[in-house]
Amino acid sequence: MATRRTLAGADMLSRDSLPRMVGVFAPASISNLGCGFDIFGMALEGIGDQVLVRAAEGTGIVAVSVSGDGGRVPTDPARNAAGLAVQGVLDRLGSEAGVAIEVRKGIPLASGLGGSAASAVAGAVAADALLGGELDRTALLECAMIGEAKGSGADHADNAAPSLLGGFVLVLPGRPPRMVEVPTPEDLVVAVAHPHMEVETKRARTILGDTITLEAGVQQWGNAAGMVAGMFSGDWGLIGRCLCDAVAEPVRARLVPGFEAVRASALEAGAIGAGLSGSGPSVFAFCRGRHAAQTVAAAMGGAFQVEAGVRSDIMISGANAFGARILENE
Amino acid sequence: MATRRTLAGADMLSRDSLPRMVGVFAPASISNLGCGFDIFGMALEGIGDQVLVRAAEGTGIVAVSVSGDGGRVPTDPARNAAGLAVQGVLDRLGSEAGVAIEVRKGIPLASGLGGSAASAVAGAVAADALLGGELDRTALLECAMIGEAKGSGADHADNAAPSLLGGFVLVLPGRPPRMVEVPTPEDLVVAVAHPHMEVETKRARTILGDTITLEAGVQQWGNAAGMVAGMFSGDWGLIGRCLCDAVAEPVRARLVPGFEAVRASALEAGAIGAGLSGSGPSVFAFCRGRHAAQTVAAAMGGAFQVEAGVRSDIMISGANAFGARILENE
Repeated sequence: MATRRTLAGADMLSRDSLPRMVGVFAPASISNLGCGFDIFGMALEGIGDQVLVRAAEGTGIVAVSVSGDGGRVPTDPARNAAGLAVQGVLDRLGSEAGVAIEVRKGIPLASGLGGSAASAVAGAVAADALLGGELDRTALLECAMIGEAKGSGADHADNAAPSLLGGFVLVLPGRPPRMVEVPTPEDLVVAVAHPHMEVETKRARTILGDTITLEAGVQQWGNAAGMVAGMFSGDWGLIGRCLCDAVAEPVRARLVPGFEAVRASALEAGAIGAGLSGSGPSVFAFCRGRHAAQTVAAAMGGAFQVEAGVRSDIMISGANAFGARILENE
Repeated sequence: MATRRTLAGADMLSRDSLPRMVGVFAPASISNLGCGFDIFGMALEGIGDQVLVRAAEGTGIVAVSVSGDGGRVPTDPARNAAGLAVQGVLDRLGSEAGVAIEVRKGIPLASGLGGSAASAVAGAVAADALLGGELDRTALLECAMIGEAKGSGADHADNAAPSLLGGFVLVLPGRPPRMVEVPTPEDLVVAVAHPHMEVETKRARTILGDTITLEAGVQQWGNAAGMVAGMFSGDWGLIGRCLCDAVAEPVRARLVPGFEAVRASALEAGAIGAGLSGSGPSVFAFCRGRHAAQTVAAAMGGAFQVEAGVRSDIMISGANAFGARILENE
């Protein structure tokens, strides 16, 4: 399936010469989605990071600047998600071009909405376009994963894949990973509450440990298989039954004050199911239609206020959000 | 979705009085199917167990006879899969009827082809029909699970569900379990080699232990989700990639001499993927079309002969095999 990124890139490449600058938007994303720890992700509408990449004197990454982050994102190319992804593209193409990177953060830090992945995806797509657009989507994903690994401490693409392709994506681990686009019911809308607290992704992973019970495993792969069956067949009862996490959420929930009450409020307000977005603290809910999603999002925001005393940003997104796309080039 | 069983049962129930005898066939099945430990199963054509249930003087199960088993299946109703399932139906319906049970085994014992489940399913469906056909498919599954639990030592329905419904079935654990019928590509054909050796199901489960690594878990739920996506979309590359077991097969393979060579022979002969059927020793392979499946089945049988010095029964089955059905009633 052609992505918007590929179409935009093809248009650009019909020009006689390579661009001097490319700007790319990559969306935020929800990962895990209940039962799909490290394998499921879904892109969100209207929120994301932008990365601008410019040809510059010198070799390799000559500068990284970041805005919208309150000065907290490292500008060392070897510690910056976009910088690492751009370097991945340069290495893969064997390029000695000089590149300056500008990152405009739109996704809150440590929110569980795939900010590192979005910066890395945008960087990879932008650098590839700057250098001629030779990489296929799997190669772009692998470059983005280099960038994200630094931020999250793990080697998985459940945020990067939907940020790249859009929509609901299953990622099969491996070298290379495989991305599978999963169709969703037409009326699926996602409600998100991002409370003004932070969860450090690395810590949220460390507390999981290295083993799980076989019983929890059977629950998890049954639910993951059932979620995909529910999405393909539009079976809301099945989707709701399968939207629960036997592995990560029971451990991580204690890092997010008020989580259980927020989840309960979403279900009471009519959500099909709800859970932590990635490692939290954001909470997502699957809803039928935008009206239902607005009600659910408001309920979740209210519950965070009451239970944890924190304000939340609330968001509504269709399930077929765009993936990464080129916004500008010259 | 109406099953053939239900249709046959409905026809029977239009008669003025309850039958005195009901005979039911329930097919053999492959479980696990690579990545779906305890959750995936598929019915096979042309091989199964028959259970005849007759109204008898007295209360409860007054007699159990078994043929085709070489005298090895217990005839104590409290230790016989069909007997336990029939008792489950009697208990569920609050019936004090007297019942005599005749089991005709068609599935080899300890073959990994769901023999206990088939006897239990046939017993449950037959007893329900004898008593008026009141139970829905979930209740019938639960009664069959009572019977199978005694044989396999575990509380799962990955053989019983496809034996009841036919086709490829995902079973979500829980009370009640939920059965999800998964469509398959039209040209999917299964090749099976049943070598003349036995693996005791209980032992094959005990050696698995109670925990798995989180890494193996992620592989498994990624593959289980991908298998369902591949089945819905007819993506053979995806089905093949996902047909591998990160959890049970690596441990159980050592119980089946020659397994790795047999699996390799299937892939060399053109199979999309192959693995242990349930806990083995039977090996199944997914193939495209009957001709390919015949070639693959012959290769697997040959490899068992060469590598383990044993003969095999080989079988070919379409993916849409019937589930349990009433053969006769009077």
